[in-house]
Amino acid sequence: MTDGLDDGVVMVETTRGGRTECVHRGHAVVVDAGGDIVEAWGDPALVTYPRSSAKMIQALPLVESGAADAHGLTPRQLSLACASHEAAAIHVDAVNDWIATLGLSDDDFRCGAQEPRNKAVRDAMIRAGDSPCQVHNNCSGKHAGFLTLNRHLGGGPDYEKVGHPVQQAARAAWEEVTGETSPGYGIDGCSAPNFATSMTGMARAMAAFAAAAGGHGGRSGTRTEAQARLVEAMIAHPEMVYGEGRACTEMMRAAGGAAAVKGGADGFYAAILPERGLGVAVKLADGGDRAKDIAMGAILARLGVLPEAARPRFVDRALTNWRGVEVGRLRATGALA
Amino acid sequence: MTDGLDDGVVMVETTRGGRTECVHRGHAVVVDAGGDIVEAWGDPALVTYPRSSAKMIQALPLVESGAADAHGLTPRQLSLACASHEAAAIHVDAVNDWIATLGLSDDDFRCGAQEPRNKAVRDAMIRAGDSPCQVHNNCSGKHAGFLTLNRHLGGGPDYEKVGHPVQQAARAAWEEVTGETSPGYGIDGCSAPNFATSMTGMARAMAAFAAAAGGHGGRSGTRTEAQARLVEAMIAHPEMVYGEGRACTEMMRAAGGAAAVKGGADGFYAAILPERGLGVAVKLADGGDRAKDIAMGAILARLGVLPEAARPRFVDRALTNWRGVEVGRLRATGALA
Repeated sequence: MTDGLDDGVVMVETTRGGRTECVHRGHAVVVDAGGDIVEAWGDPALVTYPRSSAKMIQALPLVESGAADAHGLTPRQLSLACASHEAAAIHVDAVNDWIATLGLSDDDFRCGAQEPRNKAVRDAMIRAGDSPCQVHNNCSGKHAGFLTLNRHLGGGPDYEKVGHPVQQAARAAWEEVTGETSPGYGIDGCSAPNFATSMTGMARAMAAFAAAAGGHGGRSGTRTEAQARLVEAMIAHPEMVYGEGRACTEMMRAAGGAAAVKGGADGFYAAILPERGLGVAVKLADGGDRAKDIAMGAILARLGVLPEAARPRFVDRALTNWRGVEVGRLRATGALA
Repeated sequence: MTDGLDDGVVMVETTRGGRTECVHRGHAVVVDAGGDIVEAWGDPALVTYPRSSAKMIQALPLVESGAADAHGLTPRQLSLACASHEAAAIHVDAVNDWIATLGLSDDDFRCGAQEPRNKAVRDAMIRAGDSPCQVHNNCSGKHAGFLTLNRHLGGGPDYEKVGHPVQQAARAAWEEVTGETSPGYGIDGCSAPNFATSMTGMARAMAAFAAAAGGHGGRSGTRTEAQARLVEAMIAHPEMVYGEGRACTEMMRAAGGAAAVKGGADGFYAAILPERGLGVAVKLADGGDRAKDIAMGAILARLGVLPEAARPRFVDRALTNWRGVEVGRLRATGALA
């Protein structure tokens, strides 16, 4: 994707003093349970990395292999396996408890240390003179899932390497649910491989999760059962997916069970709509965070799963300055209305 | 600026796994000392807010009025008046000392409290259980300048209001150096008005500062003298403009006196090239921070004022993950090469 090639349509803008100040381009695709495109913006054939929006896919082998049940994982833990959490106490404690049951410690992670996004945990760490650990990495729940699958498979310690059985299982599931052979992978922020996928492939995968969780086409088979369990876990425990007050968590609450949503780095967002049997993939071309909540919020509102009351946060938001004065808006453009 | 209208050319991209992942569009204009466009990308007629890139303009009345000399302001303080500092100790102490000489306190600011970007100051604040003050706002140097001018003018305490003599003086200087009547203003993060300006107008203003500091066309007159003093102050004290290790500071150091550069929120960047008598204005359409250093770095390299050794930081940068592994690049596209 270079200049001259399609980098999508303007989906989100900011205003200040009544004037448009910034614009965000992107691509989005809505796919139905039959795998067909319902609606698209930009280039539905664009191949990119879904990043953390694919965590539900990466968690499939954990459930399908029997590892999750063998280790008695709860829905709360399955939600955490799909999370990009803020490292609040609820997340850190849950991940630490989880890996302790495997007899493992922070050193067994391969995700890298990250300063907690949660302010209370961050401030307590600074006051205590402690440094961030790998458990504070927003992906540590996914990695706890990888470690659990790895225990089940009996693989070596470098579970994040692309040739490792854990990642080979992730890749197989990924290619099956997207219906595509991935043309390659990139290394994610947490060191795991992330497989390049078309926007339509990713939306198709999300639609398959939606169909499974919504009972469209039945709930028979290991794959369908695993997809349904992961979606139900996210919807039952949205606070584990990101954190209190955070976008993914609050968008799921606002949708009241009608959507499981998951953000990814560099402007990706995915949604699973069980009742409607729809999957949604969104990619903001600039990779920024602020526009993607709005783009996804506007599409969910358009699809009828986000109530009017959620619009001031997820469709047309006030921008305020350091004194709390409203200075402009961050809002979806007419393209998504 | 809406979809269908020009939102610029792709200036910067990120790669991951050898694949372009994100693209950043923008506009840029280079203007010479005669006020003519030397080179442009995107729409040079685009009207937007230069935000903090205009702080050198907002500081002109402080110097031109005689207020700076009446209060014995040093070049270090003038640099701070043009700064978006990180609230390191050198900045916080200097601003506190400055307003103390005016007999004023933190309560007299109108910029709002902001958590220090400087980690050492932030951590010390958290350990002490203190809250951020207005002095920690990245604009507190500019506001110290406003307060100094206000003392000189004898205005009321609400110096940030658009109708106040301080802001009227800023507006007059702004329209004079850009050569345009501003069509309106927005309220900035620090509550001061920021006047909408064309990209060419902003580059023209920067070229006027460059000509003044470079001695192109002489250094006679109050305006020219004030422009030269502000540019020389920034170049002599780049650490005051942002902070150690930060983009503006390090880009100025890398240019070795050949450029004064100043970032602004929402993707703006301005540069003053005294030796060349050139002014540069850059606006990334998406408003993100990561691409603007690269766009400006590439343009400065193209203009011959950024050495080869600075390219790995400011033109083609490694992107690393939480474990420090290189996962891709953040780099200027061919459009700026």
